[in-house]
Amino acid sequence: MIKPQTLKGFRDFLPATALKRQFVIEKMKEIFERFGFDPLETPALEYAETLMGKYGDEADKLLYLFKDNGGRNVGLRYDQTVPLSRVVAQYQNDLPLPFKRYQIQPVWRAENTQKGRYREFLQCDIDSVGTQSPLADTEIINCVLTTCKALGFAKPVMILNDRTIFDTLALTKKEIIILDKLDKIGTDEVINQLTLLGRTDAAELFETLKSTKPVERLSRIMEALKRQGFKDVVDFRFDPFLARGLDYYTSTIFELKIDSYSGGSLAGGGRYDNLIGSFSGRDLPAVGIAFGFDRLIEAMEELHLLPETKTASQVLVCIVDLAMLGASLELTTRLQTQGIHTEIYLDETHKLEKQLKYADRKGIPYVVIHGPDEASRGVVKLKNMQTKEQEELTIEAIIDKLTQAQ
Amino acid sequence: MIKPQTLKGFRDFLPATALKRQFVIEKMKEIFERFGFDPLETPALEYAETLMGKYGDEADKLLYLFKDNGGRNVGLRYDQTVPLSRVVAQYQNDLPLPFKRYQIQPVWRAENTQKGRYREFLQCDIDSVGTQSPLADTEIINCVLTTCKALGFAKPVMILNDRTIFDTLALTKKEIIILDKLDKIGTDEVINQLTLLGRTDAAELFETLKSTKPVERLSRIMEALKRQGFKDVVDFRFDPFLARGLDYYTSTIFELKIDSYSGGSLAGGGRYDNLIGSFSGRDLPAVGIAFGFDRLIEAMEELHLLPETKTASQVLVCIVDLAMLGASLELTTRLQTQGIHTEIYLDETHKLEKQLKYADRKGIPYVVIHGPDEASRGVVKLKNMQTKEQEELTIEAIIDKLTQAQ
Repeated sequence: MIKPQTLKGFRDFLPATALKRQFVIEKMKEIFERFGFDPLETPALEYAETLMGKYGDEADKLLYLFKDNGGRNVGLRYDQTVPLSRVVAQYQNDLPLPFKRYQIQPVWRAENTQKGRYREFLQCDIDSVGTQSPLADTEIINCVLTTCKALGFAKPVMILNDRTIFDTLALTKKEIIILDKLDKIGTDEVINQLTLLGRTDAAELFETLKSTKPVERLSRIMEALKRQGFKDVVDFRFDPFLARGLDYYTSTIFELKIDSYSGGSLAGGGRYDNLIGSFSGRDLPAVGIAFGFDRLIEAMEELHLLPETKTASQVLVCIVDLAMLGASLELTTRLQTQGIHTEIYLDETHKLEKQLKYADRKGIPYVVIHGPDEASRGVVKLKNMQTKEQEELTIEAIIDKLTQAQ
Repeated sequence: MIKPQTLKGFRDFLPATALKRQFVIEKMKEIFERFGFDPLETPALEYAETLMGKYGDEADKLLYLFKDNGGRNVGLRYDQTVPLSRVVAQYQNDLPLPFKRYQIQPVWRAENTQKGRYREFLQCDIDSVGTQSPLADTEIINCVLTTCKALGFAKPVMILNDRTIFDTLALTKKEIIILDKLDKIGTDEVINQLTLLGRTDAAELFETLKSTKPVERLSRIMEALKRQGFKDVVDFRFDPFLARGLDYYTSTIFELKIDSYSGGSLAGGGRYDNLIGSFSGRDLPAVGIAFGFDRLIEAMEELHLLPETKTASQVLVCIVDLAMLGASLELTTRLQTQGIHTEIYLDETHKLEKQLKYADRKGIPYVVIHGPDEASRGVVKLKNMQTKEQEELTIEAIIDKLTQAQ
């Protein structure tokens, strides 16, 4: 016999968890679409050459690559930016520009799972391709902040910077990475590490950066955000030390922080004006952001922003008497027709006790008991599984009550 | 440079198509949950041994199998029934029984694409595991018919049979497959082919089958369906010649037909009481159905049941004057806050003509023109991109109009 098991780094999402994830995905989609982002879906498998050499040497090692049954070299989706780039290149004559899309699909990375990373996880991206206007950056930032508020976060803050200030200061990649650690290691250690790298003017550089003002492009973004109701420092904040890890960002970069959550940023992105050009042979500026979905769920869990429901079912219709089976089936349909999530207990031979136990284990909030005794009085018994309270109500009253509970 | 292309048998879903697919998926989920089915998600990759030997020799050849970076033999999800079986076996102490789940995920099969088949396609399954009651079969059939009606199909019909009648008649697997072709090849040819197989009593057998009555179990299911508002012959129909291809069905089998669609059945399933037991070592009866999602979309397309929208955007706010940019940003937010899907044109330097062309190409139904002229009169111009009609309205009136249009 085969041991039933999932691969390391892969997860099953049983109903209670799957429902929470769906709740978040639906809210995200709602806001993304409210901003005019349309859905895009790309295949799980791509030609290996589409994926390779795009993410850097380290990342290339994490690609799931193999030969398919026709001997083609293929690979599983590693992120959603490269597939987006391929799509924009492949359909460039059919897509109206700017092309604004959201994409919510799993990606696969052969990560070291000991770091608590998963090998299959969901990415949620929004990107605008084909415009350099700061309005596109503004819209992405606005959309992400609005999404977070819709998800219930009280204080989402977008940290903003523009990579070009590092160019002005002639900072190397290594130096940028040190600066990015300011939050974690503090001023003294940043200066110390920069000095060790041979930067003799580290303290001075630090002061220069500290007093740097946002570049004009970023100022325009911040002005636009204000016109859309966001407050400087409260909702967004310029931080000249924000660096972001990826190489391909060209100007604006941003990262989403939640005040009450210490697990790091929940989303990150920026402008990448040269990436798609290198892919398609046609220069197409772009700006986008990706939510870290697992971290988002974790933060929402911590802050009790997720629904507690274990099941989509609202009510179980019990079968207490075989002679009443037909009436119970009718009642089930009647409740369902009203949009109430209703199931009938799926074994007419089981005792009521067992039926109640099922409702309890599955987390169904109400059960309906519909025996000949109740029927003779024109009522139905409604039991609240949490409070254990029972009441006798007409079917109309039950419909009212359960519709309101939705 | 790398040619941007998708693998044969794999598809990108650009916004207009992705929106249609989402529309269908959301409706399906709504009804599945209304019947108390909860979502389940399983990983794309499974241990190869979990998948192999479950689908038959032909199907095994279509599995995407490979060695992962850790040398494990893995394979891509081929269907959702085997992962369900694994889940039920793996978490058997945690799952309340009956376990009712729906699952809507892509599956991968290295099919011959010349037959118009895809190598990546979506499956939509509902199953109830852990009960032999005919109520479970009834619920699945009811749920599928209700889903089809919610999707707009006027006349979905569920064809019903019970495999045990073939056992009674001692029919072989080959003979069953011939019987199943009755619709396509006609009575004479069925009798002819059965005779060629050495069945000398073919004509007699055919007559016996033709006059066969539903077994008791199936009669109970049909009775229950009637109590839930469905009509014999109209909504469901007994057909003793219905056979279904898969080996593992043990009793009830069913197939969904749409009167006005000739492309074959849109969903098929049945009861499989021994499949999970062979996997988990614990006998667990089950019944379920899978929708053919691509065929469903095709049927809806043919019958004009899909929304015509090319984008989720309802309105584009044009930028006609840089001095009005702030006001346009404010207006955009104001419309979005009312739940209206609104985007601002993402390049403040472009001429109005280009902005209108963008709205037209993307399929945005309305544009808002908000110039200094209109502002001085306290109105905004709203243009219907389909009729080309323009009207000057207050912002409140626009909100009313666009909210009603949703």
